Amino acid sequence: MDLQRVSPSRERGWYLELMAPNVKGPGYAWLDPSRLYCHPQAFQNCMEDLVQPFQNEAIDLVAGIDAMGFILGSAIAGFLKKGFVAIRKAGHLCVRTLSQPYRDYSARDKLMEMRTDAIVPGLRVLLVDQWVETGGTMQAAIRLVEEQGGAVAGVAAICIEDSEGGRWLKRHYKWAHCVPPHLMPQFNAHHLDSFKAFEIQQSQQ
Amino acid sequence: MDLQRVSPSRERGWYLELMAPNVKGPGYAWLDPSRLYCHPQAFQNCMEDLVQPFQNEAIDLVAGIDAMGFILGSAIAGFLKKGFVAIRKAGHLCVRTLSQPYRDYSARDKLMEMRTDAIVPGLRVLLVDQWVETGGTMQAAIRLVEEQGGAVAGVAAICIEDSEGGRWLKRHYKWAHCVPPHLMPQFNAHHLDSFKAFEIQQSQQ
Repeated sequence: MDLQRVSPSRERGWYLELMAPNVKGPGYAWLDPSRLYCHPQAFQNCMEDLVQPFQNEAIDLVAGIDAMGFILGSAIAGFLKKGFVAIRKAGHLCVRTLSQPYRDYSARDKLMEMRTDAIVPGLRVLLVDQWVETGGTMQAAIRLVEEQGGAVAGVAAICIEDSEGGRWLKRHYKWAHCVPPHLMPQFNAHHLDSFKAFEIQQSQQ
Repeated sequence: MDLQRVSPSRERGWYLELMAPNVKGPGYAWLDPSRLYCHPQAFQNCMEDLVQPFQNEAIDLVAGIDAMGFILGSAIAGFLKKGFVAIRKAGHLCVRTLSQPYRDYSARDKLMEMRTDAIVPGLRVLLVDQWVETGGTMQAAIRLVEEQGGAVAGVAAICIEDSEGGRWLKRHYKWAHCVPPHLMPQFNAHHLDSFKAFEIQQSQQ
């Protein structure tokens, strides 16, 4: 779909069709959601859909997860006229930080960190990432907020997959994503679809 | 300054005092500007100051530079109701990309890349990063946009230092930053201030 054209459809999640499939092969994510940000109406509608479930929630601060979670997180913070805190991969912040180990979507063990001067006890934080696949990254971000006495007002991402970790998040926190129920099976099955397809293709060569 | 308190002063750049100094020593940046994003009024005023010089410019798309440039870039895109494109460190994007080598502020040679489906010839792009020190990163981002036929409508950052590269940017492009002229000497002299201070401290131990 052309990035310059406005879709006549404005159904929830219409902009998901703007996301770009992987053309580089194994070692890369199966799709790139960030293409939808390039389209002004898509970016705006995506933000509105993520904010909508929280319209009656008190939110004091929006936190975005390094790096792509900064994009939606910061746009949402601006939209809500709230502050924004960056939850970063370890080793970048020159200020006092709290850190938390996690296992990311590609099963690599990593460390994330957060400044210690942004959260006061009781502060209500909306956590935003681009995509929640296994949920490991988001769970580490939650621990960083809660260990400092902050309250997680909610978690938001373009898609929170129905993985074990994703389901845990949905049970324990208020959440928002952009995927209408009838499209969820496609997103949940992407491991099968994309990686199996790749394996078959590779084995035939 | 307390992140929960609103400053009675609303002079241009009042929020710069929210930035946090390096407490971790060599190997880290001399200060962390991202603390100001945590303060809702500071974040909002910072955005407004960066957008103000471009109010009569046609801007079609905002580009933010990986990773901290995503924060202000995306907030500005939302504020202007424009699309946002991420200019990324190489190796992350699973789509077709154009890449560009650059030397970052710490004199390391790196590669950045950008999707090739976001720019059409003549598209006017506002480039945003958190901070411009040597200007190497921003110049590579400019080349990525211009090689695809895009026009750089301007460059914006919290501070564009008066380094050789920073001065080149200011001569060749419309630009915006948040630092009032009387504070610029402080920011230009940070290498001297922070690193010399460190050297002296180290040599005395």
